[in-house]
Amino acid sequence: MHSYTAPLRDMRFVLKELSGLEQVARLPGYEDATPDMVDAILEEAARFAGGVLAPLNASGDRTGAHWDKQGVTMPPGFREAYQQFVANGWTGLAANPEYGGQGLPLLLSAAVQEMWKSANMAFSLCPMLTIGAAETIELVASDELKARYLPLLVSGEWTGTMNLTEPQAGSDLAAIRARAEPQTDGTYRLFGQKIFITYGEHDLAANTVHLVLARLPNAPAGVKGISLFLVPKRLVNDDGSLGAQNDVLCTSIENKLGIHASPTCVMLYGESGRGAEGYLLGAPHQGLATMFIMMNAARFAVGLEGLALSELAYQKAVAYAKSRVQGRAIEGSTDSVPIIRHPDVRRMLMLMRTQTEAMRALAYTVAAAQDAASHEVDPAERDRSAAFVDLLTPVIKGWCTETANELANLCLQVHGGAGYVEETGVAQLLRDARITTIYEGTTGIQANDLVGRKVARDGGAALLGLMHVMQQTCVTLEEHGSEDLAHIAKPLGRAIDALAQAAEYIVNHYGTDVRGVMVGSVPFLRLFGLVAGGWMMARAAHAAQLRIDADQPFEGDVTFCPAKLVSARFYADHVLSTAMGLARTVVNGGASALELDEGFF
Amino acid sequence: MHSYTAPLRDMRFVLKELSGLEQVARLPGYEDATPDMVDAILEEAARFAGGVLAPLNASGDRTGAHWDKQGVTMPPGFREAYQQFVANGWTGLAANPEYGGQGLPLLLSAAVQEMWKSANMAFSLCPMLTIGAAETIELVASDELKARYLPLLVSGEWTGTMNLTEPQAGSDLAAIRARAEPQTDGTYRLFGQKIFITYGEHDLAANTVHLVLARLPNAPAGVKGISLFLVPKRLVNDDGSLGAQNDVLCTSIENKLGIHASPTCVMLYGESGRGAEGYLLGAPHQGLATMFIMMNAARFAVGLEGLALSELAYQKAVAYAKSRVQGRAIEGSTDSVPIIRHPDVRRMLMLMRTQTEAMRALAYTVAAAQDAASHEVDPAERDRSAAFVDLLTPVIKGWCTETANELANLCLQVHGGAGYVEETGVAQLLRDARITTIYEGTTGIQANDLVGRKVARDGGAALLGLMHVMQQTCVTLEEHGSEDLAHIAKPLGRAIDALAQAAEYIVNHYGTDVRGVMVGSVPFLRLFGLVAGGWMMARAAHAAQLRIDADQPFEGDVTFCPAKLVSARFYADHVLSTAMGLARTVVNGGASALELDEGFF
Repeated sequence: MHSYTAPLRDMRFVLKELSGLEQVARLPGYEDATPDMVDAILEEAARFAGGVLAPLNASGDRTGAHWDKQGVTMPPGFREAYQQFVANGWTGLAANPEYGGQGLPLLLSAAVQEMWKSANMAFSLCPMLTIGAAETIELVASDELKARYLPLLVSGEWTGTMNLTEPQAGSDLAAIRARAEPQTDGTYRLFGQKIFITYGEHDLAANTVHLVLARLPNAPAGVKGISLFLVPKRLVNDDGSLGAQNDVLCTSIENKLGIHASPTCVMLYGESGRGAEGYLLGAPHQGLATMFIMMNAARFAVGLEGLALSELAYQKAVAYAKSRVQGRAIEGSTDSVPIIRHPDVRRMLMLMRTQTEAMRALAYTVAAAQDAASHEVDPAERDRSAAFVDLLTPVIKGWCTETANELANLCLQVHGGAGYVEETGVAQLLRDARITTIYEGTTGIQANDLVGRKVARDGGAALLGLMHVMQQTCVTLEEHGSEDLAHIAKPLGRAIDALAQAAEYIVNHYGTDVRGVMVGSVPFLRLFGLVAGGWMMARAAHAAQLRIDADQPFEGDVTFCPAKLVSARFYADHVLSTAMGLARTVVNGGASALELDEGFF
Repeated sequence: MHSYTAPLRDMRFVLKELSGLEQVARLPGYEDATPDMVDAILEEAARFAGGVLAPLNASGDRTGAHWDKQGVTMPPGFREAYQQFVANGWTGLAANPEYGGQGLPLLLSAAVQEMWKSANMAFSLCPMLTIGAAETIELVASDELKARYLPLLVSGEWTGTMNLTEPQAGSDLAAIRARAEPQTDGTYRLFGQKIFITYGEHDLAANTVHLVLARLPNAPAGVKGISLFLVPKRLVNDDGSLGAQNDVLCTSIENKLGIHASPTCVMLYGESGRGAEGYLLGAPHQGLATMFIMMNAARFAVGLEGLALSELAYQKAVAYAKSRVQGRAIEGSTDSVPIIRHPDVRRMLMLMRTQTEAMRALAYTVAAAQDAASHEVDPAERDRSAAFVDLLTPVIKGWCTETANELANLCLQVHGGAGYVEETGVAQLLRDARITTIYEGTTGIQANDLVGRKVARDGGAALLGLMHVMQQTCVTLEEHGSEDLAHIAKPLGRAIDALAQAAEYIVNHYGTDVRGVMVGSVPFLRLFGLVAGGWMMARAAHAAQLRIDADQPFEGDVTFCPAKLVSARFYADHVLSTAMGLARTVVNGGASALELDEGFF
């Protein structure tokens, strides 16, 4: 069965030619991210992903995590892999050096995380949540809590979770009922049930630090009455040693379609009646605001999962298409041919290859903007970068994950009947991918955020600014004069126009027909994603063309840059071609979607 | 958990208003299909599907079929349900009365099969294959074999299979290696391995009749050297009683993504060295031609699976969207609302509802044409109907199954996290649906057939004829004068133009650039499907408008016909809007897909 090989050259091309690794490394605090250091880390991560994590992916799916009254047992090999992961210091790659992190750019971390997620998505969720918990604690916790918890989270010796969802409170966190009772010593006792808690219980680490949303007594109703608490699985003594088991219990794990090796837990707080000891993080009733900051990081990380699974889908499909011999060539051949020779299989592989390239370029570019937003000296530059990140985060989450599902589907299609049988691991890829458009906010929630908060609220200003930059890229391509670049610029220009039409409709009608506009929110998100992806493909083509013109092959590979031009042309012909249809749906599709009375359904 | 309720009113609307049930019932031989008879059969089938088959769907998935050396054990309840199915005579609904069938139209049978497939797709595969085997035997077997095997297949007391695939021969049957050795008594002994044999072994019936593709000694290489054999699991004595076990063995079943209750078998013929006793069906070396006739019926039936799973997806999504309360209304509400109130959920439900309507109308219309092709008196009319069936069969198979996968995906999306957990049964729907674009020829194979044999071969003549009929529908709608109908006719007209452009490109370039044309084969198939579906939606809207004009509500339901107008408008805004993009891909997308050297992948 095919295993995973990190696409290092493609990653480096994006890092260096498209997302501005050099500029990021010039930001104060990121001086360590020298080209040599970056290359060494990428190589090391590639070895760990391919050599340690990928071999556990299929077996982890087959065995799954197992719950009994003693706790959750992870699949064979996961504990050892996690210990190695911790020993290598991967958890703290981008974390604050003050707490033991390496303080490297998020841009580099994005590439490294892509590898974990491609190699073994179920495994990768554990450090992803730990990183998120550490960042939250760093943001809002008291110095004492930081000193006690952060070093062990940053090292990965302890793991973290996010406890948001309750049975009646999924997308709608306003409905949260878990409660926290203040104690005289300044601590709190928590009571309530949380569901869908990723890695809520497992046997990989000595302690787990739960971040839990709950209500204080007499808290205002709705989202303005939710506070955030740190609740350790085992209490921590003043000397930092582990104390008693807290009143936190994992009562079951879900039987899910995919990510079988990632335990999805039902957690009970305060079941013994005593209450789970917890500590308030940040101000009372401000928990959701804090959680939202972290959720944006998590949404970006889930977008990376979409990219990572797309890369894996591409690799699996290519390996099969080259080795499976079946049928004669349509133009005539005496012998049977590998199925990669069949034009429709080619089309599927190119759809996977090019959309993965587009996602990677866009995701890394957003990661670089995250670095700029936190490390630029000029506040105006920081704000500009932050606005770009805000605008693109729901797009990265929604578009990359929806596309990943399509590509996982194509990967299975390339495999035919062999893909439907679990042994090839392709079905697992499809099953694993399916969660990504749901957790950390469904695609509908992302589209809601994009249309309401990111486009309509500022009258489309941020988006208009971005479209102007995109149009500049078109002009640059057209001015270059090469036929390939012109072939790419024209459909991109038309697609940007389609996006502009849709955006204009949204901005003009959000106030008067919010329901009709929201019917088009997901088509708009997809339109935005594929146009932004097309912009990245155009930038890649331009960078490639300049290298071809200057006779400077990327990393000495003379075939690499010409292939980027082909990718961009294919993307224009097969992906950008759908832009106008999506725009039409945004503009025309509101009324007919809403007209039927609910009783009709 | 939601169970299945047959959408009888929608089915009757299509049968009576769109697919010409009345005309079919006037064909010689179909006189029994009176309105009363049809309604009674539909009601009875709905009861059986909802009451007997649907309750076994989830448990069948959970338990699955089990193999051991004694054979295959079906999940609890399947045996009893199958016995009831046989006792009710469902297998023979459309079969020849000469062998115990009821000889009813395929149009009626299509509606009834839709119900079995929605209620329990894994179960439905058993009678589907039995019907296919019986039809094949009727077509080419000797009178003696017919007399011996047909009555028990038509009654369902025995079941049938199709044995085509071998490990090296999937889509490419030319590579078949199974061999048949002639015996002095006129029988044959078969040797070889077959894989992916649906219901190759099970405990539902006393005997199984395998139709097996194999090569005679000195047969020509490739597809022209394949013969078809009837190989019973147990030999049949001259008096019709069951004799010895034949040399046929199921050595394992596949661990699949879905349809767990349908055993997918590895079959060994002649493992004991004796060879499996079999009987030649039809002429030597003509097996593939016979199989292809049957495969077209099977492809249509798999297209019906796409329709059926789409209906189920819609029903499940609606049930959840009405009951799940989450979030406030976007236009403002004090309380939380059922999620059907959210515009994006509405959009998803309407995508499911309308595309299911379009698929049903097109599939039933093709079924009616099958009846006309076999029962019309006028040979020219028979030929015209047969040509329509030929043209549309790959579209029904490819478009309905691809769409079903999209809709199953939307159904899961409506459910959010609850859909990702296996308990809700939504994940099963997605897993079950995933096989439909693969077996009986992948979508790529269907598109190959459509573009090569059905469009390019006759220079687009059959398609042009059909597009002319579609355009007439547009004219009819525009001439009516109502705003709704005009709103539907315009985008349909544009979509037909897009189809015409794509078809013209195919016809003009198939001879000179077959590989480039074939890159666009699947986009073309999808374009064809969605335009044909739009034509059906327009016909439905027109029929509904005429009833509204005449104040004749369908079955007395005054809300039914207005809803059809909304459906058609939504379909135009959200589905037909993608037509031009697909056409562009067909026309422009060949070169960039094929340009990269295979070594690049």
